[in-house]
Amino acid sequence: MKTKTLVGVIMGSDSDLPVMEKAFEIFREFGIPYEVRILSAHRTPKQHTEYVQTAERRGIKTIIAAAGGAAHLPGVTAAHTTLPVIGVPIKSKALNGMDSLLSIVQMPSGVPVATVSIDGAKNAALLAIQIIALTDKKIKEKIKRYKRKIEKESFAKNKTLTVK
Amino acid sequence: MKTKTLVGVIMGSDSDLPVMEKAFEIFREFGIPYEVRILSAHRTPKQHTEYVQTAERRGIKTIIAAAGGAAHLPGVTAAHTTLPVIGVPIKSKALNGMDSLLSIVQMPSGVPVATVSIDGAKNAALLAIQIIALTDKKIKEKIKRYKRKIEKESFAKNKTLTVK
Amino acid sequence: MKTKTLVGVIMGSDSDLPVMEKAFEIFREFGIPYEVRILSAHRTPKQHTEYVQTAERRGIKTIIAAAGGAAHLPGVTAAHTTLPVIGVPIKSKALNGMDSLLSIVQMPSGVPVATVSIDGAKNAALLAIQIIALTDKKIKEKIKRYKRKIEKESFAKNKTLTVK
Amino acid sequence: MKTKTLVGVIMGSDSDLPVMEKAFEIFREFGIPYEVRILSAHRTPKQHTEYVQTAERRGIKTIIAAAGGAAHLPGVTAAHTTLPVIGVPIKSKALNGMDSLLSIVQMPSGVPVATVSIDGAKNAALLAIQIIALTDKKIKEKIKRYKRKIEKESFAKNKTLTVK
Amino acid sequence: MKTKTLVGVIMGSDSDLPVMEKAFEIFREFGIPYEVRILSAHRTPKQHTEYVQTAERRGIKTIIAAAGGAAHLPGVTAAHTTLPVIGVPIKSKALNGMDSLLSIVQMPSGVPVATVSIDGAKNAALLAIQIIALTDKKIKEKIKRYKRKIEKESFAKNKTLTVK
Amino acid sequence: MKTKTLVGVIMGSDSDLPVMEKAFEIFREFGIPYEVRILSAHRTPKQHTEYVQTAERRGIKTIIAAAGGAAHLPGVTAAHTTLPVIGVPIKSKALNGMDSLLSIVQMPSGVPVATVSIDGAKNAALLAIQIIALTDKKIKEKIKRYKRKIEKESFAKNKTLTVK
Amino acid sequence: MKTKTLVGVIMGSDSDLPVMEKAFEIFREFGIPYEVRILSAHRTPKQHTEYVQTAERRGIKTIIAAAGGAAHLPGVTAAHTTLPVIGVPIKSKALNGMDSLLSIVQMPSGVPVATVSIDGAKNAALLAIQIIALTDKKIKEKIKRYKRKIEKESFAKNKTLTVK
Amino acid sequence: MKTKTLVGVIMGSDSDLPVMEKAFEIFREFGIPYEVRILSAHRTPKQHTEYVQTAERRGIKTIIAAAGGAAHLPGVTAAHTTLPVIGVPIKSKALNGMDSLLSIVQMPSGVPVATVSIDGAKNAALLAIQIIALTDKKIKEKIKRYKRKIEKESFAKNKTLTVK
Repeated sequence: MKTKTLVGVIMGSDSDLPVMEKAFEIFREFGIPYEVRILSAHRTPKQHTEYVQTAERRGIKTIIAAAGGAAHLPGVTAAHTTLPVIGVPIKSKALNGMDSLLSIVQMPSGVPVATVSIDGAKNAALLAIQIIALTDKKIKEKIKRYKRKIEKESFAKNKTLTVK
Repeated sequence: MKTKTLVGVIMGSDSDLPVMEKAFEIFREFGIPYEVRILSAHRTPKQHTEYVQTAERRGIKTIIAAAGGAAHLPGVTAAHTTLPVIGVPIKSKALNGMDSLLSIVQMPSGVPVATVSIDGAKNAALLAIQIIALTDKKIKEKIKRYKRKIEKESFAKNKTLTVK
Repeated sequence: MKTKTLVGVIMGSDSDLPVMEKAFEIFREFGIPYEVRILSAHRTPKQHTEYVQTAERRGIKTIIAAAGGAAHLPGVTAAHTTLPVIGVPIKSKALNGMDSLLSIVQMPSGVPVATVSIDGAKNAALLAIQIIALTDKKIKEKIKRYKRKIEKESFAKNKTLTVK
Repeated sequence: MKTKTLVGVIMGSDSDLPVMEKAFEIFREFGIPYEVRILSAHRTPKQHTEYVQTAERRGIKTIIAAAGGAAHLPGVTAAHTTLPVIGVPIKSKALNGMDSLLSIVQMPSGVPVATVSIDGAKNAALLAIQIIALTDKKIKEKIKRYKRKIEKESFAKNKTLTVK
Repeated sequence: MKTKTLVGVIMGSDSDLPVMEKAFEIFREFGIPYEVRILSAHRTPKQHTEYVQTAERRGIKTIIAAAGGAAHLPGVTAAHTTLPVIGVPIKSKALNGMDSLLSIVQMPSGVPVATVSIDGAKNAALLAIQIIALTDKKIKEKIKRYKRKIEKESFAKNKTLTVK
Repeated sequence: MKTKTLVGVIMGSDSDLPVMEKAFEIFREFGIPYEVRILSAHRTPKQHTEYVQTAERRGIKTIIAAAGGAAHLPGVTAAHTTLPVIGVPIKSKALNGMDSLLSIVQMPSGVPVATVSIDGAKNAALLAIQIIALTDKKIKEKIKRYKRKIEKESFAKNKTLTVK
Repeated sequence: MKTKTLVGVIMGSDSDLPVMEKAFEIFREFGIPYEVRILSAHRTPKQHTEYVQTAERRGIKTIIAAAGGAAHLPGVTAAHTTLPVIGVPIKSKALNGMDSLLSIVQMPSGVPVATVSIDGAKNAALLAIQIIALTDKKIKEKIKRYKRKIEKESFAKNKTLTVK
Repeated sequence: MKTKTLVGVIMGSDSDLPVMEKAFEIFREFGIPYEVRILSAHRTPKQHTEYVQTAERRGIKTIIAAAGGAAHLPGVTAAHTTLPVIGVPIKSKALNGMDSLLSIVQMPSGVPVATVSIDGAKNAALLAIQIIALTDKKIKEKIKRYKRKIEKESFAKNKTLTVK
């Protein structure tokens, strides 16, 4: 049965939801069962640890963690699992996400986080799907079709260009 | 048979080899067959495209691409495949890798690159292994053992502390 | 005949069009035939390569490439041609174009990109014209007249100053 | 009895020890009992959590946490205690500690970390002592004497100046 | 009697008041007597020095100093007292508080400032309370309750999540 | 006759010569007559202006201007000519060339500078050659051959790889 | 007679006028005769050079030069005079004035520019007045009175504080 | 009599002396009487305040203040005098002087500091001399001669160029 949740999306605060909505859209478009949790490395560390430690045995294949500022959530998630962890740096108020990006990407040896661009929720979802697609032919076919689709859409823009 | 190459490691210049050596060590430690190519998005674009386009059908599961400065190799690799692409920003001479990092991580929607830290070759390899481990129980066991090993080694440092 | 297209303006996304409009205005003011294409190094790499590889034989003298974020378009364009390539870093949402600038200007040895300022579409067009003017006396005369015009306009501002 | 440990100094890696040695010197100069642990938010999260959760009841008054790169240790320490946590950003190889600084100082609302300068181990110790001095008259007297001493030493430099 | 002022909050300009209001709210929530002063290291240095030098003997336990741009107030405050000084970098107009942050956190050896995040007024107040709580059991109990409250509130967000 | 000087290379200080030597090598390899001048926008503005104003009528096709720190030379050169001006940001002592880069690339509308990477002397020369090649078939052939050569050399590195 | 112009305020573009208005207000408040010119180092270099070279003999005591982006005006002004030159970095669109600041402050040895803060027009005027005051007792008295006034105004803010 | 001290050079630490030596050389070359003091805004605030407050009446015309990191010395000097204050940002260990620069240049309205480049001791001295020269014809003549000298020396470099 396909309905087992494959991706866990966690974020430090519900204020990150509007940004992460773009990931959810991708998962719905691809029919990937996902779940969403508000879990903070700083405010709910116990619940976060528990969530991460049980993720793998519940069938989760990859965890997407989004956070802003001193963005510890992705790294601390990676500390508790051997699943691939994808980090999304959220654009922060003062420093525009440069703090979030460095807090996520500059992980020490031994504990990698697969970092995407600032507010890159959509790409986080696509990366998760590329990982899942390695062992699911139907998803593989869908991601290839998606790639052709954005190629076509991008190139089609040339037809409606009215410059010059 | 296990000896099929699972990871392709490409880099823009052979001057990146000393940094990437740390990834090779990890692959050897885990017994992951890998291959190494010097392929530049700028100097050998044709050979690069060909390599990337044929990688999946040759059984490659993920591509690690390392580059410095205006580091286009990971992103341009991701343009030609639906395999997960892991980007390693190489520390650059003038800007210490900040240029490499931003050139790799800030990818546009639709074409993700899983970025690790500046000179993070070791973590790139571990991330590749975590991805492969999703469908290989032996590798999964090894990566879990590795995690316990670095935990033990790290904690063991406390025994030899002679401060105070 | 003069109507042969001399400059190709390419950009990664049609969202860059409002910025690049300033380049088009300059080309129209100078009577330089130009063409515009939406071509992405990441979403339409094949079409991009083909466009660039055929540009020179179609009479194009220089290519202006605009892109934001991990801005690979100018560099990857330069990989496929020996025409001068002018790069325009587009101001990006999170990092204000610092990522675009570094991704464009920090090219490795052997493959130069003539980089202008962030959102510097107008200067990109003027630079293209300065290059074309090297072998076209009429254009040379026009660019000299333009330089005198902006000198005059700039100095004329002093007459209408009402400070003090 | 005075010999109860008052300050816990933790750091992510024993490579941070040479920097932190300056804190130990201050504690020895002031006669403040302290303890040192190598505890990583990423490699030994379980041991770290246990250490932090039991610190208060063992009489620890403040915890100094040092880390570099994606420096999560101070913030994750603050997640598990209501003791004041002092964060020391360690100078990192590529980004000179700017990543460490932002990862430590930009904590979200509700979970403060008292951040000192990059490699500011000495000031971290002095800050801990200023906190402890609030309720210990002897320490208060010592810190006041220390302040007068560095004033005197600094001003005395003028006597040996041989410029001009 | 409890009504003795425990925390002095000073800031360089009354334009910083809206940011610092979040600190005042925390103090009111915890019942911590505090006082507020507009004192500039540059415009009213004499009054500032006098305020700081008399703070300790008036019973103040810690001083919170907020400033933006070339933010000298926290450091110059620390020059005149052995009380713990907490620095709040105010987001500045041009550089978004990066100037404020570096001006506050990069203090020289001997004179620490406990720096919190840009505009981190709330955390400055909580840090002050954590320090005071070291010797006040009622405040200790309150800060522990507060920590449990934000944990509960944060985790409760999951119940109202309607994504998916 | 070919021996007329085609490129003027100017720099603010003779301390920039070792960096610029890489441009001279390229010109010698391509047989492009060039000249070198130490001319400072700040120390010898009169001589600089005179040099630039007479360059075009002496047959110069493009000027390469190198400078570090507050690097005004390229921009001020562009103020006095309609020849294409190529700017080389020299790596500076304190800020590693970030100051040089921004001082050169962020030119106002109307006065473009074709900026290459920090210390990018070689690419500056290649860009000048690409411009000259637009009207010189022999140079065009040489630059195409050069491109094939670096492609070949780059790809040949794969043969000597002894990793794995 | 006092009405001789003492300060020349020049700026690269009339778009800088709103920022510089704050300098004019100060000069009017102090009764300092000043003049304003739109002079660009890039668009009107000849007129700029002439203005600067004749400034001293016309009685100008100091020149304030404001510019944004690749802000060469202050430095190029300093190249042509031995009068003190004060530079005002104008906040730029993409990089918020960081480019303007570095372009102005990082001048090479031999040609200083007295740089004030980004958009610091008011301080530029006060600095000019402090310089003039060195030889004008009336202005000296005024600047001392001004200092006392801002001290008084700043401290008076405390009376109307209604926090707590 | 000429031997009255005209410039006060102060710095936060004697470790800044090697950098500031370049200022002393200039003063000796110009025959400008100067004095040097180690005065810290943080370690010896009282002595610093006293020095600054008495400087003007002792005949000092301008104060040069050098400091690194959270570099408060120039700004706090400007708080206590109406003499022009020149700030020299000292290159710092971790952040290469970017912290020093922002701490000095970003002063609030009302209290200007004339900032020169990172480690710009020589230019600080020349700026002081340009200010003094406004009312001293002999110094004026010397500074003009100096400007001609560096022009001549700079241009003379062209004679010994052996490139090409």
